[in-house]
Amino acid sequence: MSANVKENIAKENYAFTLDFKVRDYECDIQGIVNNSVYQNYLEHTRHEFLAARGLNFAELSRRNINLVVTRVEIDYRTPLMSADTFWVGLSLERKSKIRGAFRQDIIRDRDQKTICNAIVHWASINEKLKPIYCPEIDDLC
Amino acid sequence: MSANVKENIAKENYAFTLDFKVRDYECDIQGIVNNSVYQNYLEHTRHEFLAARGLNFAELSRRNINLVVTRVEIDYRTPLMSADTFWVGLSLERKSKIRGAFRQDIIRDRDQKTICNAIVHWASINEKLKPIYCPEIDDLC
Amino acid sequence: MSANVKENIAKENYAFTLDFKVRDYECDIQGIVNNSVYQNYLEHTRHEFLAARGLNFAELSRRNINLVVTRVEIDYRTPLMSADTFWVGLSLERKSKIRGAFRQDIIRDRDQKTICNAIVHWASINEKLKPIYCPEIDDLC
Amino acid sequence: MSANVKENIAKENYAFTLDFKVRDYECDIQGIVNNSVYQNYLEHTRHEFLAARGLNFAELSRRNINLVVTRVEIDYRTPLMSADTFWVGLSLERKSKIRGAFRQDIIRDRDQKTICNAIVHWASINEKLKPIYCPEIDDLC
Repeated sequence: MSANVKENIAKENYAFTLDFKVRDYECDIQGIVNNSVYQNYLEHTRHEFLAARGLNFAELSRRNINLVVTRVEIDYRTPLMSADTFWVGLSLERKSKIRGAFRQDIIRDRDQKTICNAIVHWASINEKLKPIYCPEIDDLC
Repeated sequence: MSANVKENIAKENYAFTLDFKVRDYECDIQGIVNNSVYQNYLEHTRHEFLAARGLNFAELSRRNINLVVTRVEIDYRTPLMSADTFWVGLSLERKSKIRGAFRQDIIRDRDQKTICNAIVHWASINEKLKPIYCPEIDDLC
Repeated sequence: MSANVKENIAKENYAFTLDFKVRDYECDIQGIVNNSVYQNYLEHTRHEFLAARGLNFAELSRRNINLVVTRVEIDYRTPLMSADTFWVGLSLERKSKIRGAFRQDIIRDRDQKTICNAIVHWASINEKLKPIYCPEIDDLC
Repeated sequence: MSANVKENIAKENYAFTLDFKVRDYECDIQGIVNNSVYQNYLEHTRHEFLAARGLNFAELSRRNINLVVTRVEIDYRTPLMSADTFWVGLSLERKSKIRGAFRQDIIRDRDQKTICNAIVHWASINEKLKPIYCPEIDDLC
């Protein structure tokens, strides 16, 4: 692996990173983390990022401001297994006042392998599923 | 909604369909089904489709033939809520002897609304994560 | 197994029963359904029972009447595996106007084996976690 | 709360403890952690405890030595909510060469409140679900 590639997956290249360890109940019959669980890791990282920016997802939800995912694209490169430790890196792409996207990569600690790359598109909507602007979201840029 | 559109989401236009009902533990703080859970619905539908074609996912896994998802794209249109009943439709796209894709749509019963559209790319790999051909997969076309 | 025992696990001996099929994502590294998932089956059965009695769990929750589980006891007899179909039977035990218990058994279809026996104690509480009586709960007896 | 009670829930009174933070996808419609999720926390703590003692749960499973849960009793005292941090404490009770029990308590950081108390009974069985002794388990005492 070249120095350039390594640089790409360094933690300092992300707006936010979070450390994790695989839990055995997240693994399936194949002995690997089930595909759906990566979305759990990605979501938890996004919510921790929001919290670090002073935005509480549950609190926003109680105010009927829902940051919802409108589209995900996930490329699964190699699977995580029992006992693996890893981190999720997050970068921001702002598209409008009520829409944006997160680029999120999952990297395994022991070999710096990319586990998956994801793009998660979101929108801010109210309880009637209509777009809503809330000034706090400006903090997402 | 026009007759044409309705035709597109008719069950008979899919190679396989499966009926579901939302379970409350699948809903999150926002009162809607959590994003990751749709991947559970999609996976269960694929495995039931494979079983209907005589392919047992767990049995294949024990023989070290693993059908793994390499990429998912999911467009979330409208969320499912508590007590909703819905069905998942599945269509096939074969790309090579060891790769393919499923088109999967989730449709709510009460209003025929599209909940999400997904494309799930898969590959057949062995226990060393290398591509492997198994004749049973030919049944996927 | 004697005729008497068989009689005990007949569906007609329960106030409510619900049919299920194991989904592969519910199975773990050991190839069997993960222990926590049985609680999902039990909860979904309870909520479907409540709905059949005209009680909507999500709707009650929105009114700040929360039926919460205060204690579970689960005896795991034999594990469910991929593709198993089974049913959950539910019986009621009323203890007071704001407390009760469900007896719930999980039975596998193919051999009528008891998968697990559970007692689930519940209480009715408000948003401050204080006991609250709601007349609808009288329907639980 | 008396000094005595506080002493009971001090980390040093347990054979093993593990720190956690609630993830939002673990919360349900009621805005609290779903009952089944506490079993995930308890299981992950047990597996980390085993690993700390040099026992790898997944590795044991591959050798057809399965440590299975035969019975759980969980008393739910107060629910965890979004953003709560907490720890799980574990104590051991050995019953025989192939059976034992874990006492596990979940304690919230911010107020030292007991979230739940659990007793988890286990047995060591082989792939035919028959009791099996493995010397490594002696390390559990």
